[in-house]
Amino acid sequence: MAVTLLDTRVSPFGMRVRIALEEKGVKYEYSEQDLRNKGPMLLQMNPVYKKVPVLIHNGKPICESLIAVQYIDEVWNNKPPLLPSDPYQRAQSRLWADFVDNKVYFPGRKTWTKKGQELEAGKNDLIESLKLLEGELGDKAYFEGDKLGYVDIALIPFYSWFHGYETFGNFSIEAECPKLIAWCKRCLQNESVSRSVADPQEVYGFLVELRKKLGLE
Amino acid sequence: MAVTLLDTRVSPFGMRVRIALEEKGVKYEYSEQDLRNKGPMLLQMNPVYKKVPVLIHNGKPICESLIAVQYIDEVWNNKPPLLPSDPYQRAQSRLWADFVDNKVYFPGRKTWTKKGQELEAGKNDLIESLKLLEGELGDKAYFEGDKLGYVDIALIPFYSWFHGYETFGNFSIEAECPKLIAWCKRCLQNESVSRSVADPQEVYGFLVELRKKLGLE
Repeated sequence: MAVTLLDTRVSPFGMRVRIALEEKGVKYEYSEQDLRNKGPMLLQMNPVYKKVPVLIHNGKPICESLIAVQYIDEVWNNKPPLLPSDPYQRAQSRLWADFVDNKVYFPGRKTWTKKGQELEAGKNDLIESLKLLEGELGDKAYFEGDKLGYVDIALIPFYSWFHGYETFGNFSIEAECPKLIAWCKRCLQNESVSRSVADPQEVYGFLVELRKKLGLE
Repeated sequence: MAVTLLDTRVSPFGMRVRIALEEKGVKYEYSEQDLRNKGPMLLQMNPVYKKVPVLIHNGKPICESLIAVQYIDEVWNNKPPLLPSDPYQRAQSRLWADFVDNKVYFPGRKTWTKKGQELEAGKNDLIESLKLLEGELGDKAYFEGDKLGYVDIALIPFYSWFHGYETFGNFSIEAECPKLIAWCKRCLQNESVSRSVADPQEVYGFLVELRKKLGLE
């Protein structure tokens, strides 16, 4: 069964799909996309959103990272599941994974695109969200228990972005959320994660260039 | 197993959960919430978003409407499923249900909150989204085939809002998307839908009052 991933190295959403594929031991072809000059494959496979990542399995596209991670979990079900089996726990996992999309990604974006009050609001919102997540993690090793799961996969890619957030926003996430950063380092001990996430310096370099292109420097 | 729904009659998101409960034949206690004076039960059960609907099952809250619909589908699995069983079809269903949240709700909101260019942009975006959904529906009776399913449940509540959108925005959705409106009427022939959705006049009356409160009149 042929698997291809249309992606960009620094995409936190793409990293999720890469981690899930690694967790399931799925071999795949990686295809780096140029988002400033989108190719015909990406436009054909994701005509609605025109975004990465797109997982292509047997010629059929699966768009949106959390949907793709659930798809991977359902198709390669001979390996340990990424989502819990209990319906209530599954609902909680879906809630917190969506929370990352709504309440981590958007305020995080403000740390490198905004100034003044908007920047401060973004930093405050981001820290508030991360503290909520830290509370949800509690004393567990991972969000769903003692091994890497769905919520971990949804959130850990943003660790690659934290260095950029902190540098442009001039603040420390570790000072505010030390247990969450300890969890990040624990996640990185999983080969599925360490092989899939971008280096924080690579993301920072990407953001420096992107800010120039957007006229934000 | 005790089931309670914290909701407001006009909430399109609440309507989804009501339809899903009706589809599964689940008896539940309905608890109308005052969103302008949120009660302790809502704040306790949904501390993160503080929004309706909240499905409470055996004392435990399930927040976010699409997550609640999936939960209902997984728990009451002795009744016909709402989501398809094939992983790829499930991914497609999740994609289009999320699309409703992203690309129908937000432009729809502009039709009764904005004026001038912003209103026109909202109308255009809404029609573009509805045409994409109409294309996805194609000649099928329902989005997932010959019976009401997950995408239908995600979208049909907005039919109750269309009259308000059209009146404030001064346009006709049926003129642009006649097959989608025919699908809406087909959905309403299902008792699970007709018993769960608010009357378009009730939503319109709610919007008239809300616009006054928001200083938009």
